[in-house]
Amino acid sequence: MTDRIILTIGLLGGTGNEGQGLAFRWAKAGYHIIIGSRTPEKALRVANELNERLGEDLVEGMGNQEAAELADIIVITVPYSAHAATIESLKDTLKGKVFIDVTVPLVPPNIEVVQMPTAGSAAQEAQEILGEDVSVVAAFQNISHSHLKEEGPVPCDVLVCGDNEAARNQVLELVKAAGLVGWDAGPLQNAVVVEGLTSILLGINKRYKMKNAGIRVTGGQAHE
Amino acid sequence: MTDRIILTIGLLGGTGNEGQGLAFRWAKAGYHIIIGSRTPEKALRVANELNERLGEDLVEGMGNQEAAELADIIVITVPYSAHAATIESLKDTLKGKVFIDVTVPLVPPNIEVVQMPTAGSAAQEAQEILGEDVSVVAAFQNISHSHLKEEGPVPCDVLVCGDNEAARNQVLELVKAAGLVGWDAGPLQNAVVVEGLTSILLGINKRYKMKNAGIRVTGGQAHE
Repeated sequence: MTDRIILTIGLLGGTGNEGQGLAFRWAKAGYHIIIGSRTPEKALRVANELNERLGEDLVEGMGNQEAAELADIIVITVPYSAHAATIESLKDTLKGKVFIDVTVPLVPPNIEVVQMPTAGSAAQEAQEILGEDVSVVAAFQNISHSHLKEEGPVPCDVLVCGDNEAARNQVLELVKAAGLVGWDAGPLQNAVVVEGLTSILLGINKRYKMKNAGIRVTGGQAHE
Repeated sequence: MTDRIILTIGLLGGTGNEGQGLAFRWAKAGYHIIIGSRTPEKALRVANELNERLGEDLVEGMGNQEAAELADIIVITVPYSAHAATIESLKDTLKGKVFIDVTVPLVPPNIEVVQMPTAGSAAQEAQEILGEDVSVVAAFQNISHSHLKEEGPVPCDVLVCGDNEAARNQVLELVKAAGLVGWDAGPLQNAVVVEGLTSILLGINKRYKMKNAGIRVTGGQAHE
């Protein structure tokens, strides 16, 4: 038995496609998963659906506040429009935790144009709100949820940015556990590139009539 | 005979590794090449070396000012520290031309951290200086010069950003002519991602003991 078995990952706003995909993959890897939602009943329903698919009760559903309290590692998968407010409302609960920000600051209708918040990126905005007691790590922004919800390898690597190296390494472990290839992409300041890359990939999808453009880092050994 | 034969590409600051690599590949593809330099003798020497390697006189060398006057398409491959001043000094000559900006605004010693100029990116800075009469297109920032100087395929795709679609398409043609795979990455505002990605790749080189980390866009057909 490793400590992986008992680590709890809480996905705030985890009822969406991205959250469900990550929850499914991490539950399969042996993590205890909590789906959080503003609407606890919705979280419970999604948790039940995931448990049914998994054939085991590995996922719980509850409100965001409770999820943030109970989980060791927090993942936020809310739309950008709810990003700052959700973090602000939970900030006292998140102290001392690793906080994975999956958010891309898309500004509709021009989602193919890179448009960053004044903090530099959504992840830096989260870090500003949460303060230095929380290790914000940006990751998974470029992965299509339809890949996450399938099983098997994903044709897109994960660039992981954060100022705390131990937290980056912990997230790189989670990337691997989800069956993806991750790369340490340096400090949180670099998140602007990773978040913005999603806009470029959405534009490529449209211009080249593709569904799920992604990226691979070339020039080295894959380290899955 | 196509018009490709007579199109002239001028590489400002083209005596460096990046400029030489692009010059070599485009000369082989049938373009007329001018290497520009602050020191015309140096440009001439590099042009002679390239012609020797090519076995034909396809490359000329001269000062940056003359190169900018004579070429149809301009490529700037100077270090970021010389970027704004070089463009400023040639701005009247560049009117009406396509201007390819290869620059990455690296700020030593922290070249692995994304640090952008106030304009948003080096390419946007160039566009601000040059004004709307010049079509600035950002490209080739992620390609290692050691790949360019070799022959054969390069394991890194080229993301092409610019506000003028015709100019983007012309640059995508040049990417193809150089034997690389290019992708239309949208407006110039997106250049922040492509330029900044170089810092992430340099960090990956260091952390994973790789030489030339690059990226491939996945999820579609390669279109070389």
